[in-house]
Amino acid sequence: MSLPKRVKIVEVGPRDGLQNEQQVSTAAKVELINRLTAAGMSYIEAGSFVSPKWVPQMADSAAVMKTIQRAPGTTYAALTPNLKGFEAALEAGATEVAIFGAASESFSQKNINCSIAESLARFEPVLKAAQAHNLPVRGYVSCVLGCPYEGAIEPSKVAEVAAQLAELGCYEISLGDTIGVGTPLQAQQMLSAVAERVPMQQLALHFHNTYGQALANIASCLPLGVSTIDSAVAGLGGCPYARGASGNVATEDVLYMLAGMGIETGIDLDAVIAAGLTICRQLGQTSRSNVALAKASQCEE
Amino acid sequence: MSLPKRVKIVEVGPRDGLQNEQQVSTAAKVELINRLTAAGMSYIEAGSFVSPKWVPQMADSAAVMKTIQRAPGTTYAALTPNLKGFEAALEAGATEVAIFGAASESFSQKNINCSIAESLARFEPVLKAAQAHNLPVRGYVSCVLGCPYEGAIEPSKVAEVAAQLAELGCYEISLGDTIGVGTPLQAQQMLSAVAERVPMQQLALHFHNTYGQALANIASCLPLGVSTIDSAVAGLGGCPYARGASGNVATEDVLYMLAGMGIETGIDLDAVIAAGLTICRQLGQTSRSNVALAKASQCEE
Repeated sequence: MSLPKRVKIVEVGPRDGLQNEQQVSTAAKVELINRLTAAGMSYIEAGSFVSPKWVPQMADSAAVMKTIQRAPGTTYAALTPNLKGFEAALEAGATEVAIFGAASESFSQKNINCSIAESLARFEPVLKAAQAHNLPVRGYVSCVLGCPYEGAIEPSKVAEVAAQLAELGCYEISLGDTIGVGTPLQAQQMLSAVAERVPMQQLALHFHNTYGQALANIASCLPLGVSTIDSAVAGLGGCPYARGASGNVATEDVLYMLAGMGIETGIDLDAVIAAGLTICRQLGQTSRSNVALAKASQCEE
Repeated sequence: MSLPKRVKIVEVGPRDGLQNEQQVSTAAKVELINRLTAAGMSYIEAGSFVSPKWVPQMADSAAVMKTIQRAPGTTYAALTPNLKGFEAALEAGATEVAIFGAASESFSQKNINCSIAESLARFEPVLKAAQAHNLPVRGYVSCVLGCPYEGAIEPSKVAEVAAQLAELGCYEISLGDTIGVGTPLQAQQMLSAVAERVPMQQLALHFHNTYGQALANIASCLPLGVSTIDSAVAGLGGCPYARGASGNVATEDVLYMLAGMGIETGIDLDAVIAAGLTICRQLGQTSRSNVALAKASQCEE
């Protein structure tokens, strides 16, 4: 049980965050990514190359990736569900790609109409193409702490899917509490079970804040040695029906916590706050980062 | 390092929560407390007997305490800064009273115009009167993880004030992160330092969520053995300038976390959610409980 000295933040706001928002202009996305780059982010999930029929919000990912100002030390990643998506991402200049599997059979069936095993087999061509182009591949596992159809998910099932993604060639596995239902003890048990199959340094936490538990879950898992955290500026993402309740854990709140724990990230919190307040203004939303709201209200007083 | 099997929730919404809200009717306060009682709460901070010049929002505490429907197993507590307040609380039927000290000299000076030592001396008559009437006295320590004037506060300073309150006769010491700035490691270090002076079973955590850290701090302290948590239904409380950002940690979110960790509270979460949504409607506010928002949005879908 020892805290990591440094944590890598994987900023998923421009993709996982904005894919559930309507009418975000390409210019606004580019500005957001440029601001996050300037804040010192080393990893930004910048877009998704899925069919615009399914996710019209990400139809301009190629335009976004071709327009952003890049920093040499920053990874600009894209979600690529198939070879066509991979080729488009490569052409647009993605420096890393990501694939995804579910830890729940029901979720896999209902969402992509195939079993978990079938879904992983479909990613093999993407992995081979990525290897041929020396592009690292990240793997996501969804529903690691619960499924909207099945309820609780066995940690051993998550470990199995994570191990399969690692075996396929994913250098890092992001463990997603997609519906944000998990609590600290469950998160620890799940992470421990996965770490028996995939080394801890290859694991990342990807927690949504639907039930307000995300930061508590992260805090409880850090002593186990996990050192990569997915988060979204301003807590972007999630269901529009649950405004304020949903979304990814806010990057600002994670950064504040890590700084208070003496854990380095190399990221400028104030610059991330500014980036988040800007995109929220553009979306006509209130930030879901408590840190951003607290600091903004100090300025007003 | 072992989790408690059961946690006592000290519901502070009707006092610490509502004292910063304008124009809450006596009837609304009574309804809130009755609903919290019906939800199975064993401890409700129901009012404050301070001068209405300073806290006009609590001027009707006697009326509230005389009107509520009580359950035999529930404590109805009141804040009593002086003997006059104590006598009024006793007359109104408070079954427990609370006094408060700061862990920061600057905070004490700026807020009540005296040193910490002087403030504690002023409470001695209250403690003697409470003992004479067999009323338990709870002690609050504010600014345990930071002060708006001094910044960081030494854990040893918190421990010293907590020990003094215990020595004066307080059976329980509530450790308040008044401005909500603390993070998990600091919270653990502070709690450990205090537990060297006052037994852990006499300590309670009272964390505000200004920077979104409250639940993470609680989760990080539970393995140290603390088993009393202060919280406010709907995350009531805090500064009106920082809507959504401030307030006590939401009781609903604490209950959800504890249930997920297999820790008993004896409280009906759904009934607390309903109580919180009702008072928020009456206040014209959105709940600050993510659990309440998530469950309410499920119903709408």
